[in-house]
Amino acid sequence: MSESNAVLVGRKPVMNYVLACLTLFQESGVDEISIKARGRAISTAIDVAEILRRRFMSDVKVKDIKIGTDQIERAEGGGMSNVSSIEVILSK
Amino acid sequence: MSESNAVLVGRKPVMNYVLACLTLFQESGVDEISIKARGRAISTAIDVAEILRRRFMSDVKVKDIKIGTDQIERAEGGGMSNVSSIEVILSK
Repeated sequence: MSESNAVLVGRKPVMNYVLACLTLFQESGVDEISIKARGRAISTAIDVAEILRRRFMSDVKVKDIKIGTDQIERAEGGGMSNVSSIEVILSK
Repeated sequence: MSESNAVLVGRKPVMNYVLACLTLFQESGVDEISIKARGRAISTAIDVAEILRRRFMSDVKVKDIKIGTDQIERAEGGGMSNVSSIEVILSK
């Protein structure tokens, strides 16, 4: 999947990401998008998928959900730490 | 799946839930467990699955991941609110 079909969920309000998904599906004409998140943002990513499906686009299905672990550099320096990640693939 | 094979993830430290999963697999002899969580605990549930697979039981696979929305009664009263939920099925 092209990176332009990915929505990276972080600390902004959940509706920002729902709107980003809606725009991809409706204006960019893509049939499949990928919602990605790490760490605490994983819960928000699930909220995005659920709000999009239930409130805005009932024809969108969860095609696949992948989980994994990423190694990231600690902000304060001194080695790497593990953070969980998720990717939710939605298709219509 | 029997409810006794489910681990419900909440606000306790992540290793408590990892230990609960380990106990189910190793002492109760089950081949499949379900890790469930709602809301902010969803991120912790993914951490539990990843730590268990990577650090303790490399033969455990993610069989399925389901997401959904539950209606819960607001603690302060006055109606229902929606909360996202996740279920991660692990098997060995």
